[in-house]
Amino acid sequence: MFLKNIKSERIQILTYLLKWFALSIPVGLLIGSMVALFLWLLTTAIFFRFSHPYLLYFLPLAGVAIHFIYKFLGKSSEKGNNLIMDEIHQPGGGVPPQMGVLVLITTVITHLFGGSAGREGTAVQIGGSIAQLLAKWFKLSAIDVKTLLMAGIAAGFGAVFGTPLTGAIFAIEVIALGRLKYDAIIPCLFASIIGDFTVNAWGIPHTHYHIDFVETKDFFLAAYLHWDILLIFKIIIASVAFGLVSYVFATLVYRIKNIFISLFKIKWLIPFFGGIAIILLTFSVGKPDYLSLGVNAEYDGAITITSAFKAGGADTFSWLWKTIFTTVTLGTGFKGGEVTPLFYIGATLGNTLATFMDAPISLFAALGFIAVFAGATNTPLACTFMGVELFGGQYVLFFAIACFTAYFFSGHSGIYSSQRIGVPKL
Amino acid sequence: MFLKNIKSERIQILTYLLKWFALSIPVGLLIGSMVALFLWLLTTAIFFRFSHPYLLYFLPLAGVAIHFIYKFLGKSSEKGNNLIMDEIHQPGGGVPPQMGVLVLITTVITHLFGGSAGREGTAVQIGGSIAQLLAKWFKLSAIDVKTLLMAGIAAGFGAVFGTPLTGAIFAIEVIALGRLKYDAIIPCLFASIIGDFTVNAWGIPHTHYHIDFVETKDFFLAAYLHWDILLIFKIIIASVAFGLVSYVFATLVYRIKNIFISLFKIKWLIPFFGGIAIILLTFSVGKPDYLSLGVNAEYDGAITITSAFKAGGADTFSWLWKTIFTTVTLGTGFKGGEVTPLFYIGATLGNTLATFMDAPISLFAALGFIAVFAGATNTPLACTFMGVELFGGQYVLFFAIACFTAYFFSGHSGIYSSQRIGVPKL
Repeated sequence: MFLKNIKSERIQILTYLLKWFALSIPVGLLIGSMVALFLWLLTTAIFFRFSHPYLLYFLPLAGVAIHFIYKFLGKSSEKGNNLIMDEIHQPGGGVPPQMGVLVLITTVITHLFGGSAGREGTAVQIGGSIAQLLAKWFKLSAIDVKTLLMAGIAAGFGAVFGTPLTGAIFAIEVIALGRLKYDAIIPCLFASIIGDFTVNAWGIPHTHYHIDFVETKDFFLAAYLHWDILLIFKIIIASVAFGLVSYVFATLVYRIKNIFISLFKIKWLIPFFGGIAIILLTFSVGKPDYLSLGVNAEYDGAITITSAFKAGGADTFSWLWKTIFTTVTLGTGFKGGEVTPLFYIGATLGNTLATFMDAPISLFAALGFIAVFAGATNTPLACTFMGVELFGGQYVLFFAIACFTAYFFSGHSGIYSSQRIGVPKL
Repeated sequence: MFLKNIKSERIQILTYLLKWFALSIPVGLLIGSMVALFLWLLTTAIFFRFSHPYLLYFLPLAGVAIHFIYKFLGKSSEKGNNLIMDEIHQPGGGVPPQMGVLVLITTVITHLFGGSAGREGTAVQIGGSIAQLLAKWFKLSAIDVKTLLMAGIAAGFGAVFGTPLTGAIFAIEVIALGRLKYDAIIPCLFASIIGDFTVNAWGIPHTHYHIDFVETKDFFLAAYLHWDILLIFKIIIASVAFGLVSYVFATLVYRIKNIFISLFKIKWLIPFFGGIAIILLTFSVGKPDYLSLGVNAEYDGAITITSAFKAGGADTFSWLWKTIFTTVTLGTGFKGGEVTPLFYIGATLGNTLATFMDAPISLFAALGFIAVFAGATNTPLACTFMGVELFGGQYVLFFAIACFTAYFFSGHSGIYSSQRIGVPKL
């Protein structure tokens, strides 16, 4: 009886494991390959704009082009990440197969002409649309379609940042605020690992970040404690700021969208004037640092995510400028994700706060990097793991403190309107 | 309006944060201090038995003493960790204040005479009973009592192993299988950090483990991939074994308990014959390695958790012997936790499997260490974090694969009968 019990339950689980391993191979390979193509095109577009800076002046026209591409070819694709989440909560018309290709092309266009946006939205939508397509081909059941969509999110996210575990946790965490369910974790892990492997196999590199802060033993009560209490207080204060900035970011995207909608009856004028706003903003800042992705430096001394890890690598209000540039770009219909700009906002804000509070700069840049993202997407656990996968495990306790504090201070909105509230924050 | 919105919500959250920070200070200090005392007494008892090995012959009498201590002073204390979980799910008579002291004394007695048991159960019960006591003094509301009990679990667990983040995640994860809710995470984090700080401040050290495996670049497809696929397959196969052993452990504790109950009408005969069984087992093995905690070596070349991280540091069936020793000890009424023996079983099984599969021994010992525990307690996320806190973040992906695979293969029972099923595994 004892052995029989083990057998029947375990064979079921083994079958489940093998089934999802088999399904993950095409899902991971296809999504990984498309993400690799996307990353390569994106980098090419970014460096092409660096050598042809006048392209920025065509941003308004690029916006109009994106508008019409979606109008004629997009169907429900325009809803992006939210549509994928809606399909996971309540299957409807499905994710249209063209979503992935459209968002790939329009994100590259956005970046080619200098729009401030990210990558993860694009990768997640590539993941969702490929997963839906494969689910149809394999004639999966409704519950399996849901799981495969989550695996698609995991593979897209894991592949685009080179963080497979974060991708898998993000996929199960982002669906609903305040709780996590494990039922889809194995398919998500398989798919994101294979997706990440595929990007690697295509030879696409990821950015490496480095925390150069090494805790010394000369802090308050160092003889008795192995952590610096004062540093933890500074981290909590900074993380409250990270959470508030997440809130401002999420709210601003909606508000800018609504303001532009109320201003312009003719829809294509919205991205047109959005593009003009970005041009004017660039003139008023006097430098192109807040355009596009913010990972690569257009010139020596440009403010990037990487520079924010060093003293003097960010201006006091870099985080604010990047918030404005990105919310205008995304609020007026340009394409791309929110996450890389959130990394930028967090890292530069971390830099600024560390300078004010006399705290280690690279550590605070790293904390801002993950915590602003955690607050804006309500995914504190995925972001804690992202800290470990990108920066190493030594400061995992600080990562968790930062992400959960920011999460509590970012309100219930977040950047994904289709995210459900599982357990309210208070 | 915008600013007002931020204000009212944020002030609520700030009040919440400050309130729980204030509550965490006495909780963390008291629990941390009592755990420090417990760890000190435990180590003293273990080394005293090393120099007086004949103490083992008094184990049956020690068992009878423990039985009567609980009979006359325990009230509902006997239910241990399960009672604390029940009180969190559905407040009842409360956790009796004497639970912490009783379990501390009886665990030290168990180890002094060579019973094979752990520490976390004791620490969690110390945490739960102190939290309940403080909740009463502070006249907290029912919902706050629940949160404080979880914070007590977090502080006890975080303090006993020196892993504050794992303690906090464990407390919110262990309550229900298959899902996680974030509402109590901040109080749990505060309490476990302060608890860990307190143990440190008392100068109590924790064991350090080290994975000496460094991945080289000579694996299959190394030119294209940054992880070794073959190694990941070996990890999945080993983790299935880790999960099955968790299942066997959890089931054996119940079965041995039931067998002894059916054999002996007179209750105190159960621990008496349990003690005799342990003595006979020690004779049949011919060495004392599977007695007590398994962390410190009684003699050079003894099999311990630490030795399992090195080639030749475990016998082929060490994991099975430790399973039998521990399930007999705990199933016949001795006191202590299950987790350190689970670490032992996992690390030695990892050692054995790595030898058979030609895999890195220290890595597999570490994976077994966390994965058998993950399977037996159904807390894969806490165990993944434990891997990061104890062994570093480099292999976090492997930790997650191992813990979640073991979790899925360990069945729905687990060692805590009061754990509820949040989301079934299949």
